[in-house]
Amino acid sequence: MSEHSKYLLTDRQIPTAWVNVLPSLPEPLDPPLHPGTHAPLAPADLAPIFPMELIEQEFSPRPLIDIPGEIMDIYRLWRATPLYRARRLEKVLDTPAHIYYKYEGTSPAGSHKPNTAVAQAYYNKRAGIRRLATETGAGQWGSALALACQMFGMECTVYMVRVSYDQKPYRRMMMHSWGAQVFASPSTYTNAGRGVLAAHPDSPGSLGIAISEAVEDAATHSDTNYSLGSVLNHVMLHQTVIGQEARLQMQDAGEEPDVVIGCFGGGSNFGGLALPYVLDRFQGRGPRILAVEPAACPSLTRGKFTYDFGDTAKLTPLIKMYTLGHDFVPPGIHAGGLRYHGASPLLSHLVSLGHIEAKAYSQLPVFEAAVQFARTEAILPAPESSHAIRAAVDEALAAKQEGKPRVILFCLSGHGHFDLSAYENYLTGKLQDYEYPDKDVAEAMANI
Amino acid sequence: MSEHSKYLLTDRQIPTAWVNVLPSLPEPLDPPLHPGTHAPLAPADLAPIFPMELIEQEFSPRPLIDIPGEIMDIYRLWRATPLYRARRLEKVLDTPAHIYYKYEGTSPAGSHKPNTAVAQAYYNKRAGIRRLATETGAGQWGSALALACQMFGMECTVYMVRVSYDQKPYRRMMMHSWGAQVFASPSTYTNAGRGVLAAHPDSPGSLGIAISEAVEDAATHSDTNYSLGSVLNHVMLHQTVIGQEARLQMQDAGEEPDVVIGCFGGGSNFGGLALPYVLDRFQGRGPRILAVEPAACPSLTRGKFTYDFGDTAKLTPLIKMYTLGHDFVPPGIHAGGLRYHGASPLLSHLVSLGHIEAKAYSQLPVFEAAVQFARTEAILPAPESSHAIRAAVDEALAAKQEGKPRVILFCLSGHGHFDLSAYENYLTGKLQDYEYPDKDVAEAMANI
Repeated sequence: MSEHSKYLLTDRQIPTAWVNVLPSLPEPLDPPLHPGTHAPLAPADLAPIFPMELIEQEFSPRPLIDIPGEIMDIYRLWRATPLYRARRLEKVLDTPAHIYYKYEGTSPAGSHKPNTAVAQAYYNKRAGIRRLATETGAGQWGSALALACQMFGMECTVYMVRVSYDQKPYRRMMMHSWGAQVFASPSTYTNAGRGVLAAHPDSPGSLGIAISEAVEDAATHSDTNYSLGSVLNHVMLHQTVIGQEARLQMQDAGEEPDVVIGCFGGGSNFGGLALPYVLDRFQGRGPRILAVEPAACPSLTRGKFTYDFGDTAKLTPLIKMYTLGHDFVPPGIHAGGLRYHGASPLLSHLVSLGHIEAKAYSQLPVFEAAVQFARTEAILPAPESSHAIRAAVDEALAAKQEGKPRVILFCLSGHGHFDLSAYENYLTGKLQDYEYPDKDVAEAMANI
Repeated sequence: MSEHSKYLLTDRQIPTAWVNVLPSLPEPLDPPLHPGTHAPLAPADLAPIFPMELIEQEFSPRPLIDIPGEIMDIYRLWRATPLYRARRLEKVLDTPAHIYYKYEGTSPAGSHKPNTAVAQAYYNKRAGIRRLATETGAGQWGSALALACQMFGMECTVYMVRVSYDQKPYRRMMMHSWGAQVFASPSTYTNAGRGVLAAHPDSPGSLGIAISEAVEDAATHSDTNYSLGSVLNHVMLHQTVIGQEARLQMQDAGEEPDVVIGCFGGGSNFGGLALPYVLDRFQGRGPRILAVEPAACPSLTRGKFTYDFGDTAKLTPLIKMYTLGHDFVPPGIHAGGLRYHGASPLLSHLVSLGHIEAKAYSQLPVFEAAVQFARTEAILPAPESSHAIRAAVDEALAAKQEGKPRVILFCLSGHGHFDLSAYENYLTGKLQDYEYPDKDVAEAMANI
């Protein structure tokens, strides 16, 4: 039998608690501020749109938070996810590096997003909420929440960024199949949406706009709460099942990563894999940690670290984060899940403290890596996840240049089954490479 | 911790040999006949389009055939596949039955098809073949062979049935992403294709026509062989990894199936799951075994058991099988992978001997079951696989009627990520229910 290239865990090895890094931070997070008064936010301010148990998690001082049995029951439908060593890719790159990837695409929705969707649906259901409203970019988050609501017998309304709504009809149909209602955003169903459409009738939409619509929907319906698929502390918390599993699996492989990599939009798959390793760094050890974002929406590499709104209509609290400006509308790249103007405040804080590095790639080198990966490792990766692949390949090539080993671990956050038109465009030479959108960013950053 | 609903195997438990039922048959198979002379086929007759190792497997007297290490290396990328108990579905059906399903959709191509694609590419590569030509219906087989050829550095040409080529562009793009060349069939690239187009310029195509094209391509190029994704004995052989794993997993669950169910087109996922259980039946024990086909293409339930061609242009050997006639073109149902006029000769033989039951369903009740499954078990099933779900649900409801337990095991052969437009049509009331196509069948059967 050849050497292992796959590391599995039994149901009993699935983590039974989420890891919370808040109490271990070397310096505390700056608090979110009330959008009206600019005073630090009180938990009660969030009660109109979130259930109290999630609000508690958002600010929790406990280092571990138990995962309820009802959530474990659903996690077990697809967790633990596999960890692979990319032996075929290593061979093609002719590198001394060892490349490992944690594959979250085996969930029914095809990405890591159900890890938090299931938890959020559960806590809202317990709080007596009947319906959840949310936004989605590429559709991965919307699919995950549609699935989670279906599992708990709740209704789900999804505001889907128009450019993805049009580019990825299959994601919309998937949400329908799981019983959700889906609107293209900006829509005519909310004041926020109507406002944008009045100014820009052809708006391709953005996550910022779609968030405004979903928050407004939740705030104006008492049986409805809002659900966010990234950015917030409780989302990062739920995603730590990824990194906890990966650590066990890396132990099984007998290796420690030198560098941990994830693609970065709001930060949820990245944080999910990286945060357990960040705790090691607080102890003075631990790997390099690298966030990879699209050059078309480079919040971490070119944004400002400052207080800004999470949405376009300024309905959310002010959050201290790396931001390109709350009314920045990124170009319609295929990695729709990475088109967010801001970033998780927790991960922004860790970037500012030097625990996390960041790097941006444009679309063409990302798809080049995606195709190379598909043709060696067999799995067709999502365009979002392919940013991590590009960086992992470059790390492996740097190791080759140095002639030294390097252990690389990255998160393959989802499959690309609904992104095949992007692959087709790439393979036929039709894919555009968006440059850094200097002018739009300058304008949006002036409005922060 | 709640009761298990998922049964995994370690890499070491993946079967290392395929199970061959040929030497155990109570009565031997009638031999294939030469299409020209009608004499029993000699292995050498197949040499222009198949490598000798596969021809040997087609007629092998050995009860077990070792799986080469190079194939095991690739199997391990996604095998063993999980076995699930459908506890949520059972609960909604309020049935005393236990429903288990073996899920083959975790392969990179999304179905069971790579189990044989990888083996076929391997043996052809060893025989010095540079390119494989094949047909595909829904695209699942074509994707699998594209992937397998890519893994072994071979070229791949796929003739894709036109109705699926148009309905499922993503499957075509997936094949491109893995480096294959894809033509809509009937095409202008072969005599067989040009012949059909001359008579029926708007032909939606059929597996029979696409097979003719691929066989002709292979027969007329010395560096190219033909590869078939179903029907043949060696295909059934390779797929027995499914049933062997399922048996181990059912042991783990501590249950024996009362009935084993699979959807049926040419028979490959069905045979893969069922054949290890058929061996039990030869010993006077073993479960009921149920093949489920579409009412629009009902070879087993309404076809003749007789010698017929495997393709429309009469290029293949004559095979003794259940057939609707080699020039039967089934309606364009969404379960494109089940649109085959014939059936595996081995499985046909077992149907005729009474070891396998068969049942047909029309499209609407199949999609009703698919949506019920997606909304309870979370996985979005392929329309093909959903025929097995429909039958499993009906078995569970029959058990409820009887007030008795029943252990049901079915093969969920693939996911429906590329079939979402069919789901959307179903959910919006636009899906047509094709009736049994009496007139077309009568005409085609008169031509056998």
